[in-house]
Amino acid sequence: QSLSKPMKESQVMPLVKDIMVRNVATIRRGFSVDEAAKKIIQDRFNHLPVVDDGGKLVGIVTAWDVSKAVALSKRDSLEPIMTKNVITIGPDDPVDLAVRLLERYNISALPVIDGDKKVIGIVTGEGLSKLLARGVQK
Amino acid sequence: QSLSKPMKESQVMPLVKDIMVRNVATIRRGFSVDEAAKKIIQDRFNHLPVVDDGGKLVGIVTAWDVSKAVALSKRDSLEPIMTKNVITIGPDDPVDLAVRLLERYNISALPVIDGDKKVIGIVTGEGLSKLLARGVQK
Ligand SMILES: C[S@@+](CC[C@H](N)C(=O)[O-])C[C@H]1O[C@@H](n2cnc3c(N)ncnc32)[C@H](O)[C@@H]1O
Repeated sequence: QSLSKPMKESQVMPLVKDIMVRNVATIRRGFSVDEAAKKIIQDRFNHLPVVDDGGKLVGIVTAWDVSKAVALSKRDSLEPIMTKNVITIGPDDPVDLAVRLLERYNISALPVIDGDKKVIGIVTGEGLSKLLARGVQK
Repeated sequence: QSLSKPMKESQVMPLVKDIMVRNVATIRRGFSVDEAAKKIIQDRFNHLPVVDDGGKLVGIVTAWDVSKAVALSKRDSLEPIMTKNVITIGPDDPVDLAVRLLERYNISALPVIDGDKKVIGIVTGEGLSKLLARGVQK
Protein backbone atom coordinates (compact mmCIF):
# COMPACT_ATOMS: atom_id res chain seq x y z
CA GLN A 1 0.00 0.00 0.00
CA SER A 2 2.74 2.41 0.98
CA LEU A 3 4.41 1.33 -2.25
CA SER A 4 1.72 3.02 -4.35
CA LYS A 5 2.53 6.46 -2.99
CA PRO A 6 5.03 8.62 -4.87
CA MET A 7 8.44 8.71 -3.22
CA LYS A 8 8.05 12.32 -2.22
CA GLU A 9 4.67 14.02 -1.99
CA SER A 10 6.00 17.14 -3.67
CA GLN A 11 7.65 15.34 -6.57
CA VAL A 12 5.91 14.06 -9.72
CA MET A 13 6.69 10.38 -10.32
CA PRO A 14 8.22 9.95 -13.77
CA LEU A 15 6.77 7.56 -16.32
CA VAL A 16 8.43 4.42 -17.62
CA LYS A 17 9.07 6.05 -21.02
CA ASP A 18 11.08 8.82 -19.30
CA ILE A 19 13.60 6.42 -17.82
CA MET A 20 13.55 3.23 -19.92
CA VAL A 21 16.52 2.10 -22.00
CA ARG A 22 15.31 2.28 -25.62
CA ASN A 23 18.14 0.43 -27.23
CA VAL A 24 17.17 -3.20 -26.46
CA ALA A 25 18.74 -6.19 -28.17
CA THR A 26 16.22 -9.01 -28.81
CA ILE A 27 16.59 -12.54 -30.20
CA ARG A 28 14.31 -14.65 -32.41
CA ARG A 29 12.82 -17.75 -30.76
CA GLY A 30 14.48 -20.13 -33.27
CA PHE A 31 17.99 -19.33 -32.09
CA SER A 32 20.20 -21.56 -29.93
CA VAL A 33 21.36 -21.00 -26.36
CA ASP A 34 24.91 -20.46 -27.61
CA GLU A 35 23.71 -17.67 -29.89
CA ALA A 36 21.80 -16.09 -27.01
CA ALA A 37 24.93 -16.30 -24.84
CA LYS A 38 26.94 -14.53 -27.55
CA LYS A 39 24.37 -11.75 -27.75
CA ILE A 40 24.25 -11.35 -23.96
CA ILE A 41 28.04 -11.03 -23.83
CA GLN A 42 28.42 -8.80 -26.90
CA ASP A 43 25.83 -6.30 -25.78
CA ARG A 44 26.87 -6.59 -22.08
CA PHE A 45 23.16 -6.91 -21.42
CA ASN A 46 21.75 -9.40 -19.00
CA HIS A 47 18.20 -9.61 -20.38
CA LEU A 48 17.35 -10.71 -23.87
CA PRO A 49 13.67 -10.50 -24.81
CA VAL A 50 12.74 -13.34 -27.20
CA VAL A 51 10.46 -12.39 -30.13
CA ASP A 52 8.54 -14.31 -32.80
CA ASP A 53 8.88 -13.69 -36.54
CA GLY A 54 6.44 -10.80 -36.29
CA GLY A 55 8.60 -9.17 -33.62
CA LYS A 56 6.13 -9.86 -30.80
CA LEU A 57 7.43 -10.73 -27.35
CA VAL A 58 7.20 -14.47 -26.55
CA GLY A 59 9.78 -14.91 -23.79
CA ILE A 60 12.87 -13.66 -21.99
CA VAL A 61 16.33 -15.16 -21.56
CA THR A 62 18.92 -14.06 -19.04
CA ALA A 63 22.45 -15.15 -18.19
CA TRP A 64 20.79 -17.16 -15.43
CA ASP A 65 18.77 -19.13 -17.99
CA VAL A 66 21.95 -19.78 -19.98
CA SER A 67 23.48 -21.25 -16.80
CA LYS A 68 20.34 -23.36 -16.44
CA ALA A 69 20.80 -24.63 -20.00
CA VAL A 70 24.42 -25.53 -19.24
CA ALA A 71 23.47 -27.22 -15.97
CA LEU A 72 20.79 -29.29 -17.75
CA SER A 73 22.84 -29.84 -20.95
CA LYS A 74 20.04 -28.35 -23.07
CA ARG A 75 21.76 -25.90 -25.36
CA ASP A 76 20.08 -26.50 -28.73
CA SER A 77 17.05 -24.27 -28.49
CA LEU A 78 15.84 -21.35 -26.42
CA GLU A 79 12.33 -22.77 -26.13
CA PRO A 80 12.82 -25.07 -23.11
CA ILE A 81 14.86 -22.62 -21.07
CA MET A 82 13.36 -19.20 -21.82
CA THR A 83 10.78 -17.80 -19.40
CA LYS A 84 7.49 -17.68 -21.30
CA ASN A 85 5.37 -15.91 -18.75
CA VAL A 86 7.06 -12.54 -19.11
CA ILE A 87 6.11 -9.75 -16.72
CA THR A 88 6.01 -6.55 -18.79
CA ILE A 89 5.16 -2.90 -18.36
CA GLY A 90 3.84 -0.13 -20.65
CA PRO A 91 5.60 3.14 -21.55
CA ASP A 92 2.90 5.25 -19.87
CA ASP A 93 2.93 3.36 -16.57
CA PRO A 94 4.44 5.14 -13.56
CA VAL A 95 7.96 4.17 -12.49
CA ASP A 96 6.77 3.07 -9.06
CA LEU A 97 4.69 0.33 -10.70
CA ALA A 98 7.95 -0.95 -12.22
CA VAL A 99 9.57 -0.97 -8.78
CA ARG A 100 6.63 -2.91 -7.33
CA LEU A 101 6.59 -5.50 -10.14
CA LEU A 102 10.34 -6.10 -9.87
CA GLU A 103 9.98 -6.65 -6.13
CA ARG A 104 6.81 -8.70 -6.21
CA TYR A 105 8.08 -11.14 -8.85
CA ASN A 106 11.73 -11.05 -7.72
CA ILE A 107 12.96 -10.32 -11.23
CA SER A 108 15.62 -7.93 -12.44
CA ALA A 109 14.12 -6.39 -15.59
CA LEU A 110 10.83 -5.59 -17.30
CA PRO A 111 10.50 -5.36 -21.07
CA VAL A 112 8.46 -2.29 -22.05
CA ILE A 113 5.92 -3.23 -24.75
CA ASP A 114 3.53 -1.26 -26.93
CA GLY A 115 -0.07 -2.20 -27.75
CA ASP A 116 1.22 -4.67 -30.37
CA LYS A 117 3.48 -6.58 -27.94
CA LYS A 118 6.53 -5.10 -29.70
CA VAL A 119 9.47 -4.48 -27.38
CA ILE A 120 10.18 -0.75 -27.28
CA GLY A 121 12.42 -0.57 -24.22
CA ILE A 122 13.54 -2.19 -20.99
CA VAL A 123 13.61 -1.15 -17.35
CA THR A 124 16.11 -2.84 -15.03
CA GLY A 125 16.32 -3.06 -11.26
CA GLU A 126 19.90 -1.90 -11.55
CA GLY A 127 18.89 1.23 -13.44
CA LEU A 128 16.08 1.94 -11.00
CA SER A 129 18.22 1.55 -7.91
CA LYS A 130 20.64 4.10 -9.36
CA LEU A 131 17.71 6.51 -9.77
CA LEU A 132 16.49 5.75 -6.25
CA ALA A 133 19.97 6.16 -4.76
CA ARG A 134 20.27 9.57 -6.39
CA GLY A 135 16.90 10.54 -4.91
CA VAL A 136 17.99 9.47 -1.43
CA GLN A 137 21.15 11.53 -1.53
CA LYS A 138 19.44 14.78 -2.46
CA GLN B 1 31.53 12.97 -1.36
CA SER B 2 27.84 13.09 -0.53
CA LEU B 3 27.99 9.30 -0.71
CA SER B 4 30.11 9.12 2.43
CA LYS B 5 27.40 10.70 4.57
CA PRO B 6 24.91 8.42 6.31
CA MET B 7 21.50 8.38 4.61
CA LYS B 8 19.92 10.23 7.49
CA GLU B 9 21.91 12.22 10.00
CA SER B 10 19.86 10.89 12.88
CA GLN B 11 20.21 7.24 11.93
CA VAL B 12 23.18 5.01 12.66
CA MET B 13 24.44 3.33 9.49
CA PRO B 14 24.45 -0.43 9.97
CA LEU B 15 27.57 -2.52 9.42
CA VAL B 16 28.07 -5.09 6.69
CA LYS B 17 27.83 -7.95 9.21
CA ASP B 18 24.33 -6.76 10.20
CA ILE B 19 22.93 -7.15 6.70
CA MET B 20 25.12 -9.66 4.84
CA VAL B 21 23.85 -13.05 3.73
CA ARG B 22 25.87 -15.59 5.72
CA ASN B 23 24.95 -18.71 3.87
CA VAL B 24 27.19 -18.42 0.78
CA ALA B 25 27.84 -21.29 -1.60
CA THR B 26 31.43 -21.34 -2.91
CA ILE B 27 33.23 -23.49 -5.49
CA ARG B 28 36.81 -24.82 -5.65
CA ARG B 29 38.96 -23.41 -8.44
CA GLY B 30 39.55 -26.84 -10.04
CA PHE B 31 35.89 -27.29 -10.99
CA SER B 32 34.41 -26.94 -14.48
CA VAL B 33 32.05 -24.28 -15.81
CA ASP B 34 29.27 -26.87 -16.02
CA GLU B 35 29.68 -27.64 -12.33
CA ALA B 36 29.58 -23.94 -11.50
CA ALA B 37 26.40 -23.58 -13.57
CA LYS B 38 24.79 -26.42 -11.62
CA LYS B 39 25.67 -24.76 -8.34
CA ILE B 40 24.36 -21.37 -9.48
CA ILE B 41 21.05 -22.92 -10.52
CA GLN B 42 20.65 -25.18 -7.47
CA ASP B 43 21.21 -22.41 -4.98
CA ARG B 44 19.31 -19.79 -7.07
CA PHE B 45 22.33 -17.64 -6.41
CA ASN B 46 23.93 -15.46 -9.02
CA HIS B 47 27.37 -15.09 -7.45
CA LEU B 48 29.70 -17.95 -6.71
CA PRO B 49 32.96 -17.07 -4.94
CA VAL B 50 35.83 -19.33 -6.09
CA VAL B 51 38.19 -20.59 -3.36
CA ASP B 52 41.51 -22.43 -3.30
CA ASP B 53 42.12 -25.67 -1.41
CA GLY B 54 42.68 -23.71 1.78
CA GLY B 55 39.29 -22.03 1.39
CA LYS B 56 40.77 -18.62 0.51
CA LEU B 57 39.00 -16.42 -2.04
CA VAL B 58 40.70 -16.48 -5.47
CA GLY B 59 37.90 -15.37 -7.80
CA ILE B 60 34.21 -14.98 -8.46
CA VAL B 61 31.94 -16.53 -11.07
CA THR B 62 28.46 -15.32 -12.01
CA ALA B 63 25.76 -16.53 -14.38
CA TRP B 64 27.12 -13.87 -16.72
CA ASP B 65 30.57 -15.51 -16.71
CA VAL B 66 28.92 -18.85 -17.49
CA SER B 67 27.31 -17.18 -20.53
CA LYS B 68 30.74 -15.85 -21.46
CA ALA B 69 32.17 -19.38 -21.27
CA VAL B 70 29.34 -20.65 -23.52
CA ALA B 71 29.84 -17.76 -25.97
CA LEU B 72 33.59 -18.48 -26.15
CA SER B 73 33.22 -22.29 -26.04
CA LYS B 74 35.52 -22.48 -23.00
CA ARG B 75 33.72 -24.69 -20.54
CA ASP B 76 36.47 -26.93 -19.17
CA SER B 77 37.82 -24.82 -16.37
CA LEU B 78 36.79 -21.86 -14.28
CA GLU B 79 40.25 -20.30 -14.47
CA PRO B 80 39.91 -18.41 -17.79
CA ILE B 81 36.43 -17.06 -17.15
CA MET B 82 36.35 -16.27 -13.45
CA THR B 83 37.05 -12.71 -12.34
CA LYS B 84 40.31 -12.81 -10.39
CA ASN B 85 40.44 -9.25 -9.19
CA VAL B 86 37.58 -9.56 -6.73
CA ILE B 87 36.35 -6.43 -4.98
CA THR B 88 35.58 -7.46 -1.39
CA ILE B 89 34.45 -5.90 1.85
CA GLY B 90 34.93 -6.65 5.55
CA PRO B 91 32.24 -7.50 8.12
CA ASP B 92 32.95 -4.37 10.17
CA ASP B 93 32.79 -1.95 7.24
CA PRO B 94 29.77 0.38 7.07
CA VAL B 95 26.98 -0.50 4.64
CA ASP B 96 27.42 2.76 2.75
CA LEU B 97 30.93 1.68 1.76
CA ALA B 98 29.31 -1.39 0.18
CA VAL B 99 26.90 0.87 -1.74
CA ARG B 100 29.79 3.00 -2.98
CA LEU B 101 31.89 0.01 -4.07
CA LEU B 102 28.98 -1.57 -5.94
CA GLU B 103 28.37 1.72 -7.75
CA ARG B 104 31.97 2.64 -8.42
CA TYR B 105 32.88 -0.74 -9.88
CA ASN B 106 29.46 -1.32 -11.40
CA ILE B 107 29.21 -4.79 -9.86
CA SER B 108 26.27 -6.61 -8.32
CA ALA B 109 27.77 -8.31 -5.25
CA LEU B 110 30.65 -8.13 -2.79
CA PRO B 111 32.01 -11.20 -0.98
CA VAL B 112 32.57 -10.45 2.70
CA ILE B 113 35.94 -11.82 3.82
CA ASP B 114 37.65 -12.20 7.17
CA GLY B 115 41.33 -11.48 7.90
CA ASP B 116 42.24 -14.89 6.42
CA LYS B 117 40.53 -14.22 3.06
CA LYS B 118 37.87 -16.79 4.00
CA VAL B 119 34.43 -15.99 2.61
CA ILE B 120 32.04 -15.39 5.51
CA GLY B 121 29.16 -13.71 3.69
CA ILE B 122 27.99 -11.79 0.66
CA VAL B 123 26.31 -8.43 0.08
CA THR B 124 24.31 -7.92 -3.12
CA GLY B 125 23.04 -4.80 -4.87
CA GLU B 126 19.64 -6.45 -4.95
CA GLY B 127 19.60 -6.90 -1.18
CA LEU B 128 20.83 -3.37 -0.62
CA SER B 129 18.25 -1.77 -2.91
CA LYS B 130 15.53 -3.55 -0.95
CA LEU B 131 16.95 -2.02 2.25
CA LEU B 132 17.19 1.39 0.57
CA ALA B 133 13.66 1.16 -0.83
CA ARG B 134 12.33 0.40 2.65
CA GLY B 135 14.16 3.45 3.99
CA VAL B 136 12.63 5.66 1.29
CA GLN B 137 9.10 4.56 2.08
CA LYS B 138 9.28 5.28 5.78
C1 LIG C 1 14.12 -15.42 -10.80
S1 LIG C 1 15.63 -14.87 -11.32
C2 LIG C 1 16.68 -16.05 -10.63
C3 LIG C 1 17.86 -15.42 -10.03
C4 LIG C 1 17.47 -14.56 -8.85
N1 LIG C 1 18.61 -13.77 -8.50
C5 LIG C 1 16.97 -15.36 -7.68
O1 LIG C 1 17.45 -15.11 -6.57
O2 LIG C 1 16.11 -16.18 -7.78
C6 LIG C 1 15.89 -15.18 -12.97
C7 LIG C 1 14.72 -15.67 -13.76
O3 LIG C 1 13.81 -14.62 -13.93
C8 LIG C 1 13.39 -14.63 -15.27
N2 LIG C 1 12.96 -13.27 -15.61
C9 LIG C 1 13.72 -12.17 -15.75
N3 LIG C 1 12.97 -11.10 -16.09
C10 LIG C 1 11.69 -11.55 -16.15
C11 LIG C 1 10.43 -10.94 -16.46
N4 LIG C 1 10.35 -9.66 -16.76
N5 LIG C 1 9.33 -11.72 -16.43
C12 LIG C 1 9.40 -13.01 -16.13
N6 LIG C 1 10.55 -13.65 -15.83
C13 LIG C 1 11.68 -12.92 -15.84
C14 LIG C 1 14.54 -15.10 -16.07
O4 LIG C 1 14.15 -15.67 -17.29
C15 LIG C 1 15.18 -16.11 -15.12
O5 LIG C 1 14.71 -17.41 -15.36
